[in-house]
Amino acid sequence: MVNTDENETTPTPGTTDSEKKEVEMEVVKSASDPSTDPTKTKTVAEEGGNAPGSSSAAEIEAETTTQQAAPAAAEPPPNPAPVATTTTTTTTATPPVGADADRKIRAVTLSSFGGLKNIKIVEKPLPPAPNDGQVTIEVKVSGVNFQDILLRLGISDVTPSLKTPLVLGTECIGVVTAVGGNVNRIKVNDLVFAFPESGAFSEIIVVDERCVFKVTKPSLTLEELACTLPYIVAHMLLSRSGVNSGATVVVQSAGGGVGLAIKELAAMRGINVVGIASAGKHEALGKYEFKHLIPRGQDYVAEIKKLYPDGVDAVFDSQGGDDISRGISLLAPLGTYILFGTGNVVTGENRGIFTVAKGWWTQVEKIPPMKLLEENKLVGGFRLRSLLKACPERVQKTCEDVWELMTKKEIHPVVDKTFHFEQMATAMQRMHERKNVGKILIRPDIEVPAPPEAQPAAPAGIVQVEQGTAATEEGSSTSTSSTVVAAPVAAPPAPDAAN
Amino acid sequence: MVNTDENETTPTPGTTDSEKKEVEMEVVKSASDPSTDPTKTKTVAEEGGNAPGSSSAAEIEAETTTQQAAPAAAEPPPNPAPVATTTTTTTTATPPVGADADRKIRAVTLSSFGGLKNIKIVEKPLPPAPNDGQVTIEVKVSGVNFQDILLRLGISDVTPSLKTPLVLGTECIGVVTAVGGNVNRIKVNDLVFAFPESGAFSEIIVVDERCVFKVTKPSLTLEELACTLPYIVAHMLLSRSGVNSGATVVVQSAGGGVGLAIKELAAMRGINVVGIASAGKHEALGKYEFKHLIPRGQDYVAEIKKLYPDGVDAVFDSQGGDDISRGISLLAPLGTYILFGTGNVVTGENRGIFTVAKGWWTQVEKIPPMKLLEENKLVGGFRLRSLLKACPERVQKTCEDVWELMTKKEIHPVVDKTFHFEQMATAMQRMHERKNVGKILIRPDIEVPAPPEAQPAAPAGIVQVEQGTAATEEGSSTSTSSTVVAAPVAAPPAPDAAN
Repeated sequence: MVNTDENETTPTPGTTDSEKKEVEMEVVKSASDPSTDPTKTKTVAEEGGNAPGSSSAAEIEAETTTQQAAPAAAEPPPNPAPVATTTTTTTTATPPVGADADRKIRAVTLSSFGGLKNIKIVEKPLPPAPNDGQVTIEVKVSGVNFQDILLRLGISDVTPSLKTPLVLGTECIGVVTAVGGNVNRIKVNDLVFAFPESGAFSEIIVVDERCVFKVTKPSLTLEELACTLPYIVAHMLLSRSGVNSGATVVVQSAGGGVGLAIKELAAMRGINVVGIASAGKHEALGKYEFKHLIPRGQDYVAEIKKLYPDGVDAVFDSQGGDDISRGISLLAPLGTYILFGTGNVVTGENRGIFTVAKGWWTQVEKIPPMKLLEENKLVGGFRLRSLLKACPERVQKTCEDVWELMTKKEIHPVVDKTFHFEQMATAMQRMHERKNVGKILIRPDIEVPAPPEAQPAAPAGIVQVEQGTAATEEGSSTSTSSTVVAAPVAAPPAPDAAN
Repeated sequence: MVNTDENETTPTPGTTDSEKKEVEMEVVKSASDPSTDPTKTKTVAEEGGNAPGSSSAAEIEAETTTQQAAPAAAEPPPNPAPVATTTTTTTTATPPVGADADRKIRAVTLSSFGGLKNIKIVEKPLPPAPNDGQVTIEVKVSGVNFQDILLRLGISDVTPSLKTPLVLGTECIGVVTAVGGNVNRIKVNDLVFAFPESGAFSEIIVVDERCVFKVTKPSLTLEELACTLPYIVAHMLLSRSGVNSGATVVVQSAGGGVGLAIKELAAMRGINVVGIASAGKHEALGKYEFKHLIPRGQDYVAEIKKLYPDGVDAVFDSQGGDDISRGISLLAPLGTYILFGTGNVVTGENRGIFTVAKGWWTQVEKIPPMKLLEENKLVGGFRLRSLLKACPERVQKTCEDVWELMTKKEIHPVVDKTFHFEQMATAMQRMHERKNVGKILIRPDIEVPAPPEAQPAAPAGIVQVEQGTAATEEGSSTSTSSTVVAAPVAAPPAPDAAN
């Protein structure tokens, strides 16, 4: 599983109205961590900088109406960019970061693998100073990914060694507040994109420098930057496939972040994209001008072969399982199939989820190389996380390419909805039920309860933050709710519904 | 098996001196084919053209000393280019082509699958007029490929449905003398590169238009043009792998035509090439400046991993079998493995060749897609023949790219040796024993017996034709020898010697 929101799951009866519930998270206050030693850390105060992110937070507080994103400044400001476009009535800012050892931070914590009820908002002491090779980041906004669901269920194949309790979240945009020894690429006050194995749903995180990439276009909005990940994946998938102008590619989960990013980057190169997506999303996806949209629930292979009897030039598969051989069968000679996710792991069979997960990996059909020779096909996989240690400079370069395109407004990041920590369960369930079109974001600094009903997705380039319907404790950085009313985990649907 | 000479086989005791033998081929005179109907065919005479190839043949006859290739003319002549560089004392020309129904042509025929003794030179009547979609070609020069050995043995996986008796040969350069109906891309008098399933070792062939590609740079020499095939394969392999400047690739059979072509094209793009080749070839390969040359007989995986602990960016494998998983294991993240031949089929195990061949395909280890996902690898195959029907325009375009590079002298085709039809067994055995460095050619219009001993390979760009040591029947276009003294087929060596 690439840590992206490329996956779609089929809505399951009994949980489809979970979004309407007002999901509140339990807040647990942890004792101060005795291992914390802020004296080892270069802090913002020591570096002489202002508290990073404070202007951004202040602007969020001031905004009460929808605004268009400000045009990119020729000279990017040293501080993180303001959140340009929001629709919000009640927001609260986190306190400025300092060397305050008494400060508590909030984090979305998974107590044990399982359902949404195992997610809690925990108050924790400031993390210890970064060790050698680590950096401390004050998180501004995080992205929710399908990988978060797999990790919560304890069936992640990307980070199978992680143990509970842990803080969820695998990507964020934030500001560096401290760096450990032997950290060379990253400096205090840098605005960064981080891609840690876990922990991103926290106000402050300490992570390995190798998963941190300096934002070279800080004039971009936080919401634009929060859409970096799907564009990196899409950019690298298209490069790997070697497709050129006039080619046709098929993408699974066309309505996910990666699906939309592939569509956009492909269009720039004159490449046609056929999208496979839940039929329920087709109307919302209409404006993205896919060459064809094929419903996921039907025999998409027959459908696509009818449209392209000679085959297509590339297939990008976020699902895996039986979709692997189907995807390969769609290829024309000189075609390339790339698996970049394993969404089918949670929808494969109507059995207990852990049984399915355990058997799934071995059930995947292996590929005979002689057949690839006869048919002139390439087959492979792409997982961004595996690349971080091997070639971080390649990831940094791709980030910069993506931010350049964003700055030039050649690509238009699509945010589905922005949630607050306390709405984590709603956000996760929205992804699990494949309701999102574009990226689902989560922020530590905005406290809004779940909406009374689902809202239409924001148009491309417009960021929409959930409007509150209940009064919130303005000025407080933590929720005092203590009851967990989490939506139950959806049971996987029957196989015929999944494909 | 791609029809190229990318394969190497290990010399087998008892046959290593086969080259010293004077191999003569049996000539069988066939009865005139009653189905021949030249009236249906547009002939050269009808089109008003001169007998194509006659000037070339005349020049061959006149040449008695080594000459450098003439520089490419700015305006290519309408007739096929002269053979610019030869070292020959006795040559004979074929008679000019006309509508002479009584004319006999010679062809290298396989009577039944098996050893070299089953190859005979057969005198045949002119083939029937081309049907719809077919063209008739007067062959000027053919290339010998490893595929010819597999076909002779009856274990070709590329053309498994071919039955004996048949005329051997899968590629040639020649001049079109007639075209059937519905032939649009090719015209009479066109100089062409043809890539038929069989039949290219003949003075005249009739082939499907889809395997015929018009030479757009007729100023190139026949020997240069005869090296088109390995460059097409190399060009497409490099494109498929997506490697760029600074990358490192590994190629099996570095001394074969494709291996050398990959080296040359890669060098132009700033790509380093590590070659795997029989130790006996390393001295001859020294001048080609491979980044490293690794002997095929040792544990090349350990050797290359020592040199590139992080892996290489692409592996081009002409061997298959156990070399597939070895090749994949050499890849760095984002690396690409491409199988383009199955040379190991004849060296896999020290058992009866047909048993090995039969079991071989099923013994090839299948590839788990989840592993490719985890490791960010692409794995696939390339077989030019499968592309002819699917995308002939892509092959034509690649041919033109290659000829453009040849014309600009940016690539320098390497001919190993040029043989005559009567030396077919020697030529095949040379390839089987992996003695060739560069392309082995065979011509219908030069009659020279085998040399008394092996000669050093010609340097790049210099074409060397075997020097005769015995008197030949000058002026005759057919040999009258009737005794077959073919070298026995080499038994496959033990597995440890093969890898």
